[in-house]
Amino acid sequence: MKMLINVPETVVPDALRGIAAAHPDLTVDVEHRIIMRKGAPFEGKVGLVSGGGSGHEPLHGGFVGRGMLDAACPGEVFTSPVPDQMARAAAAVDSGAGVLFIVKNYTGDVLNFDMAAELAEDEGVQIAKVLVNDDVAVTDSLYTAGRRGTGATLFVEKIAGAAAEEGAPLDRVASLARQVNEASRSFGVALTACSTPAKGGPTFDLPDGELELGIGIHGEPGRERRAMMTSGEIADFSVDAILEDMRPDAPVLALVNGMGATPLLELYGFAAEVHRVLAERKVAVARTLVGNYVTSLDMAGCSVTLCQVDEELLRLWDAPVATPGLRWGY
Amino acid sequence: MKMLINVPETVVPDALRGIAAAHPDLTVDVEHRIIMRKGAPFEGKVGLVSGGGSGHEPLHGGFVGRGMLDAACPGEVFTSPVPDQMARAAAAVDSGAGVLFIVKNYTGDVLNFDMAAELAEDEGVQIAKVLVNDDVAVTDSLYTAGRRGTGATLFVEKIAGAAAEEGAPLDRVASLARQVNEASRSFGVALTACSTPAKGGPTFDLPDGELELGIGIHGEPGRERRAMMTSGEIADFSVDAILEDMRPDAPVLALVNGMGATPLLELYGFAAEVHRVLAERKVAVARTLVGNYVTSLDMAGCSVTLCQVDEELLRLWDAPVATPGLRWGY
Repeated sequence: MKMLINVPETVVPDALRGIAAAHPDLTVDVEHRIIMRKGAPFEGKVGLVSGGGSGHEPLHGGFVGRGMLDAACPGEVFTSPVPDQMARAAAAVDSGAGVLFIVKNYTGDVLNFDMAAELAEDEGVQIAKVLVNDDVAVTDSLYTAGRRGTGATLFVEKIAGAAAEEGAPLDRVASLARQVNEASRSFGVALTACSTPAKGGPTFDLPDGELELGIGIHGEPGRERRAMMTSGEIADFSVDAILEDMRPDAPVLALVNGMGATPLLELYGFAAEVHRVLAERKVAVARTLVGNYVTSLDMAGCSVTLCQVDEELLRLWDAPVATPGLRWGY
Repeated sequence: MKMLINVPETVVPDALRGIAAAHPDLTVDVEHRIIMRKGAPFEGKVGLVSGGGSGHEPLHGGFVGRGMLDAACPGEVFTSPVPDQMARAAAAVDSGAGVLFIVKNYTGDVLNFDMAAELAEDEGVQIAKVLVNDDVAVTDSLYTAGRRGTGATLFVEKIAGAAAEEGAPLDRVASLARQVNEASRSFGVALTACSTPAKGGPTFDLPDGELELGIGIHGEPGRERRAMMTSGEIADFSVDAILEDMRPDAPVLALVNGMGATPLLELYGFAAEVHRVLAERKVAVARTLVGNYVTSLDMAGCSVTLCQVDEELLRLWDAPVATPGLRWGY
């Protein structure tokens, strides 16, 4: 498998140097692997820190900036960052108003963010945590007890980030983040496996002519394999898997997400099918975001995340944001 | 080759329905295949129309919006749109101030935009044209006489779009567009072939362990094939190929572009190497854009585009823009 890299061992620091070069609004600590909003901490503002294994870009580093995260901590590819890293990030962005950790539900991340919270609290930083676990495909998986955290992370980071930007206190930012997670559900599909730099090739086998329904963002097994389906059939299956678990009685934010290697042309066609299914199921769509936001390296495939919103969540979603991966209003 | 589609024949209209669903700021005429800024034409404003074969998204439809294009005309995958389509788009966005056609240098596009200009002028629309031909890899190619048009298209559309938004007249918008094209050079590299829906598989063979230097955005042959290179070696080769042809004596805009399937993690690492080479060659970088902007379906690989800017071009680059693919300041 050919990759645009120097050597597998330096993929993460190489990318951090590129982020530093491209984004003067960010401060990148390559040594300690922290991507931070320039100027942080901000007087009176709750700090938002997330992180996780690399390979899901733009998540999380691409969501650092005004109106979203204050810092992101990338681990090695598909590997949790370490507690020192998140504790250091928390201390760096804490203005005294406390810090919210946004944690995707993978065992390594959960353990390491818990340890980081203890370390940060020892240093006098008040920490709150939100666990993101939106993926309805399976309970318990290769790296998870309970549901996996996937696309809802973007909604949590954006909406909690907007509240923090407006000056909401830590308990309010944390409760909004939990509300968003509880109102969100995701389902993902792989057409191909992904290849990690360390392995140098596909991390699992997915034969020609088959797809995997309910895939995880690290290629963890989903619900089942089937013969290749059309875009419309995949939309039906994915949306129905979500609606079996959550029946929205208010409009939703819809994220139609690419896993990395699926062309945007195909993804927009899929978005049309997702809208068709939602209309047939009488689910109103308030906003739709189409693109590669929560990826799995070079995997071809897609996921759908729906988040039921009230007026306040929608207002916070629409609030200005200025990050490399998501930007409007500034 | 598995694709997220219904049937190959409806890939373009399916995507147009998705664009319409996701972007209420755009008006999408699915029947005539025109993506238009809502509210166009705008009193006194020069209209900007581009288009070309589909498969390069977000180019061009993703660059329709405030501060950039007024309309885009997608053809079938890797196939020029038809003259009626562009003429209809021109008439729709003309406020009386005239319309600039932005045309990538491929024989089909050039012929069809010429015919569209005649049709539009017959209807009383004043037309100016700019031809984008920035790719230094080869002269004459599979679909081109002369140099191919690639990444510079984004710079031309953004900078000319900003000038039009400020109320510049047609001759000024057109001369700025030509200035940007002349100040821009690109070079691209493929690690894999791309697959078109119609063919259902790779459009050419690129063996494991080899890359193609100087690839075109439709997979047209480049300069040469070599054994796989590191990210740093590719950056050296690509930047030097550009600098052999253009020796900037002012800062440049740098587009570090993914061909579609290369993970953003790898692309940022490549951006770091591009910055290293530019620093070694004493070329100052004013702005850097990293991402999948001018793509070739599911091709893995990258391209570099440099555009030498003066203060006025840089000011217009930084001006606000609100499109699905490029957004800041609004």
